[in-house]
Amino acid sequence: MDTLNFKLVIEYDGTAFKGWQSQPSDRTVQGELEAALQRVIGGQRVVVNGAGRTDAGVHARGQVASIKLETNLTPKQLCGAINSQLAEDVRVQAVSPAGDDFHARFSAAGRRYSYALATDHPVVGRQYVWPVRFTIAPELLHSCAGLVEGRHDFEGFAKAQVAQDSTDCDVHLSQWEQQPRRLVYHVAADRFLHHMVRFLVGSMVEVARGRFTLEQFARQLDRRSGGLDVYRAPAQGLVLEEVRYDRG
Amino acid sequence: MDTLNFKLVIEYDGTAFKGWQSQPSDRTVQGELEAALQRVIGGQRVVVNGAGRTDAGVHARGQVASIKLETNLTPKQLCGAINSQLAEDVRVQAVSPAGDDFHARFSAAGRRYSYALATDHPVVGRQYVWPVRFTIAPELLHSCAGLVEGRHDFEGFAKAQVAQDSTDCDVHLSQWEQQPRRLVYHVAADRFLHHMVRFLVGSMVEVARGRFTLEQFARQLDRRSGGLDVYRAPAQGLVLEEVRYDRG
Repeated sequence: MDTLNFKLVIEYDGTAFKGWQSQPSDRTVQGELEAALQRVIGGQRVVVNGAGRTDAGVHARGQVASIKLETNLTPKQLCGAINSQLAEDVRVQAVSPAGDDFHARFSAAGRRYSYALATDHPVVGRQYVWPVRFTIAPELLHSCAGLVEGRHDFEGFAKAQVAQDSTDCDVHLSQWEQQPRRLVYHVAADRFLHHMVRFLVGSMVEVARGRFTLEQFARQLDRRSGGLDVYRAPAQGLVLEEVRYDRG
Repeated sequence: MDTLNFKLVIEYDGTAFKGWQSQPSDRTVQGELEAALQRVIGGQRVVVNGAGRTDAGVHARGQVASIKLETNLTPKQLCGAINSQLAEDVRVQAVSPAGDDFHARFSAAGRRYSYALATDHPVVGRQYVWPVRFTIAPELLHSCAGLVEGRHDFEGFAKAQVAQDSTDCDVHLSQWEQQPRRLVYHVAADRFLHHMVRFLVGSMVEVARGRFTLEQFARQLDRRSGGLDVYRAPAQGLVLEEVRYDRG
């Protein structure tokens, strides 16, 4: 058997996971997938490389992973076999053959997320929203979202981390959508810094409730001032919707 | 203290409940509410009368209940006190004073439900949809829904039960809405027979997948023939959205 490379599209409900990345003693999506694969194909140890290492509580409708393994199974058979070994809060939605050099993370050309907040206190679907308990002005959310679009330095909206070559991101979608009982933020970019969507949403809500001005928010972009104490919105409202590849 | 009558609007996620109605050994919404109330007001035993006795697994965004009790609490205080005693999958969204003769069930002038189905296999939000695993024709769903509107005898879409004076219902809303990854049925009527929405949805889906004809579905309405073996859609897709009162 040759070693083959596959692309997996994965959906999960992050509520009961400690995030994507394998950990020795916690239930994670990567951990569950690797354990399922091992039961399917026997002895081989296969690493499931995800496009995004989502945090504890974050959901995904379109996470992508790549795996290399020796198998005679077709992609469709492999998909069914993995799913037969998974709990109901994670599911492989599609498996397709990928070129040798395809890597879910390093080949990714862009990602799209959504973030949902509710201004009431929902029970049905509470696992998937941030219930905001104060009055907010939606038009200020829209104004903030408009400022985010384009190429900016987002270091002011990222978790402090080791120095990177660049903290610039190219945001080509940034808008709020009114849904019944929900406000949903859609954002797509070539790349995202760590916790960036949650810091953006938290800060936009601070503007929309009158704690930051729109000007302060604008200055936080591109670090023209540093120094806003930006608030990170909770994990449960965030969904990794899609990972984009130029090919593969 | 006088005995006062209150109207409660209640939201719940039916996933972990054995339905509305109190049962000796199962967790039910009515049971949880009555236990919460007893902790709030002490010795009195208060009955929570619900407008609709939803089945196990059915959700509600707008269930209504009435309660009579002696209290010095304002409606708002009562609401907060009850909620402080409830788990996160049930919540009183509003409490208001009601006239002496108000009864959530007997005073109701109409109810509105939604039913969601998914033609893929969702993970995020799986608790709230029926994942339909076969190909269906949405235009046939729309045709069926159109036939349902108006005054009809719905005995052919109800669970067999003791004889009733009438099995006529006046349906003033019956339509399917396409949402992202979802088809949602909205239906409102003066009254509903037992399991009627689930039998209607199950039968419409049978038409839309080609097992019943539209003509057979039409004949099942008004019992012009009896005899279709109607399929009852699963509980989890159903939400009691609203109960309507002419006053109160």
